[in-house]
Amino acid sequence: MSSKSKELPLDFNAKPIVPTRGVPWAADKWMVRTLLRALNDAPIAIRLWSGETLYWGQSRPEVTLRIRDRRALWQLVFDPDLYFGDAYSTGRLVVEGDLLKFLDLVTRNLPQSNNWLPVLRSVISRTPRSNTLRGSRQNIHHHYDLSNEFYALWLDREYLQYTCAYFPTPTVTLEEAQIAKLHHVCRKLGLKQGHEVVEAGCGWGGLGLFMAKHYGVKVRAYNISHEQIIFAMERAKQEGVEDRLVYIEDDYRNITGTYDIFVSVGMLEHVGVSNYPALGDVIHGSLRESGCGLIHTIGRNRPRSMNAWIEKRIFPGAYPPTLKEMADIFEGHGFSILDVENLRLHYAKTLEHWLQRFNGVEEQVRMMFDDRFVKAWRLYLTGSISAFLLGELQLFQMVFSRDTNNDIPWTREHLYRRCSPLDEASP
Amino acid sequence: MSSKSKELPLDFNAKPIVPTRGVPWAADKWMVRTLLRALNDAPIAIRLWSGETLYWGQSRPEVTLRIRDRRALWQLVFDPDLYFGDAYSTGRLVVEGDLLKFLDLVTRNLPQSNNWLPVLRSVISRTPRSNTLRGSRQNIHHHYDLSNEFYALWLDREYLQYTCAYFPTPTVTLEEAQIAKLHHVCRKLGLKQGHEVVEAGCGWGGLGLFMAKHYGVKVRAYNISHEQIIFAMERAKQEGVEDRLVYIEDDYRNITGTYDIFVSVGMLEHVGVSNYPALGDVIHGSLRESGCGLIHTIGRNRPRSMNAWIEKRIFPGAYPPTLKEMADIFEGHGFSILDVENLRLHYAKTLEHWLQRFNGVEEQVRMMFDDRFVKAWRLYLTGSISAFLLGELQLFQMVFSRDTNNDIPWTREHLYRRCSPLDEASP
Repeated sequence: MSSKSKELPLDFNAKPIVPTRGVPWAADKWMVRTLLRALNDAPIAIRLWSGETLYWGQSRPEVTLRIRDRRALWQLVFDPDLYFGDAYSTGRLVVEGDLLKFLDLVTRNLPQSNNWLPVLRSVISRTPRSNTLRGSRQNIHHHYDLSNEFYALWLDREYLQYTCAYFPTPTVTLEEAQIAKLHHVCRKLGLKQGHEVVEAGCGWGGLGLFMAKHYGVKVRAYNISHEQIIFAMERAKQEGVEDRLVYIEDDYRNITGTYDIFVSVGMLEHVGVSNYPALGDVIHGSLRESGCGLIHTIGRNRPRSMNAWIEKRIFPGAYPPTLKEMADIFEGHGFSILDVENLRLHYAKTLEHWLQRFNGVEEQVRMMFDDRFVKAWRLYLTGSISAFLLGELQLFQMVFSRDTNNDIPWTREHLYRRCSPLDEASP
Repeated sequence: MSSKSKELPLDFNAKPIVPTRGVPWAADKWMVRTLLRALNDAPIAIRLWSGETLYWGQSRPEVTLRIRDRRALWQLVFDPDLYFGDAYSTGRLVVEGDLLKFLDLVTRNLPQSNNWLPVLRSVISRTPRSNTLRGSRQNIHHHYDLSNEFYALWLDREYLQYTCAYFPTPTVTLEEAQIAKLHHVCRKLGLKQGHEVVEAGCGWGGLGLFMAKHYGVKVRAYNISHEQIIFAMERAKQEGVEDRLVYIEDDYRNITGTYDIFVSVGMLEHVGVSNYPALGDVIHGSLRESGCGLIHTIGRNRPRSMNAWIEKRIFPGAYPPTLKEMADIFEGHGFSILDVENLRLHYAKTLEHWLQRFNGVEEQVRMMFDDRFVKAWRLYLTGSISAFLLGELQLFQMVFSRDTNNDIPWTREHLYRRCSPLDEASP
């Protein structure tokens, strides 16, 4: 199945780039100065379409931003969060030097600036797209139905985990780290043979498959991405576990039945804060008295919208919550939070692996989509590494049970009993 | 130093008990029926002053509540949370049978009842006493300055830890479990020789002493309990670590200096939610860029005041927060929550040890104070066991760092590397 025929996932106007000619105006240079001041005079030089390079910093510039047309420059001043990504993807902006270094410098310096630009930036208020039953379908289709082949090019080979891995040590491979993550989640949940598990948002079904194969549990997994569900069902059949592994193309709000375990890895980012009490109701309705649950999600230390460009072009409707916001899932029914682990640096490491593999298959991706897509995704992956390294994003794994459940692990020592979660395949 | 001369810590009116005589009125029996209905017809019998026992349950009653005078009965109906404790301490109410069983039955059944009594109970709104600088001093004095001798009778011998212990397995002794707790805290903080530590609310100085002795750090510990500070300073001198262990009789709000480590074990319960942003400011002002902190506190799954009697007679000003409420400490300065562990059942176990020891020294305590005091404290310890066992109270250990700090442990495996934290005395 090729995706070449599909509608391009990046729906912005793809006008051919017409570089500006002629010498920059005085107003252009004023704009450049405004940008550089807003960046606290970080060691970034700006080269305009004329070849003229502007830089007022003290030390040598570490990276150069080439601006190839006037419109890109002015849009960047007006709304850098949104327009940088579009202009970068279409080649109207070019970063000469290390993209990660450039993004680090911008992220570190922009909020500290007392220039008026960050103020302008902060008043552009943004609301993520709505996550109604219908809105969620459109939002999820936008990203996850890009093409299974595309994701298979650069995710881990066995379980296609498009979520943060767990690296027992920083040097293990991505494949090992994703298997370690799956074990880590299963151990936190205290899975036992015969347990009935419901999974909300199951991606390509890797976790469900792993639990059914290695922990002998029965899984009912929900997802609204059509392509992912088809893939997951095929895989379950191939692996001969379709008797204890059911994939359902439906919204988490339509979960039925009662279970020993509730698990959701990488879905909460797409739920929307206003739906957290409803998610709490779903968990309350589906978890048995002695049940236990785990939510794995990207989060924040303080409330802030997703980067505007990421929300618009990559992840419509996405919002990474704070722990305080997540409390709305649990407090209504008095769920007891047993364990929270922050795996922020593990996500930076996971993304580094993904980016390296993505760069290795760049040509194939360009054939599948186009050059704009390659640039946009490189920016998204690199920007995410930067956000996790700089503490702009967190990764929370949260284990919970009903408040009256005393059949909970006495300590967390069992999570670490073996030297590495990779040493064995089942509990 | 004896405490016999002190003002009695339980300041309620100590009128001699005058049991009611004569047959109960119809109104008395109506009150009893109201009580039993509110308890969902739990297997509790009520015996009145006349000897008459009232019980309408199906199964055999498991415990009997003796009510020795009319006023106690009527007060109990009006405000059980507040008056049960007073009437129990003065002997106007007597629980015949297992007190823990009785409290479990009440806690389990009262909230499920559709009788009007729990509604009345919930509309009696209560505000904990204020924790201004002066209010905190009075509140802390009330409880912690009772007498060092009293606490030494039943806390662990070596470190006088009046906070939840950590039981690597449920069968270790209280002394072992408190040492394991101290190691657990030190490991979570990643203590290294030479680190400078500030401790907010240091009790009798056990944690500071342990850190200075076994981890080679320098500690500055704050506490507003005069008796505790005197005790801690003596002890530091005896142990020969006064050069790296300073105890200061002052409020956490007056902490000065900058540190590698901020730690607070069992103080947050006395801070008051309205002061959490101020506590966040103190942490922000005192923690270095690469610093790390830990807060250990009793908490809740959903916001609710402390039991009225405990707040009035035992812990004035106390309030156990939810994780959501605790976010007010961290979000203002963007602190990153790295790890949350809920040790609820460890606190039930700790309290069981304390109660057992307390019962063993009952006569000595009665000599120090009086019988009312013994009964009140037995009720407080037993009620706390019940609250932790039933999930009414939680125990959160929360580790945090600045959001930009990447010098954090890669996993939590080091916390569990040895079979037991008791196997070794230093890192």
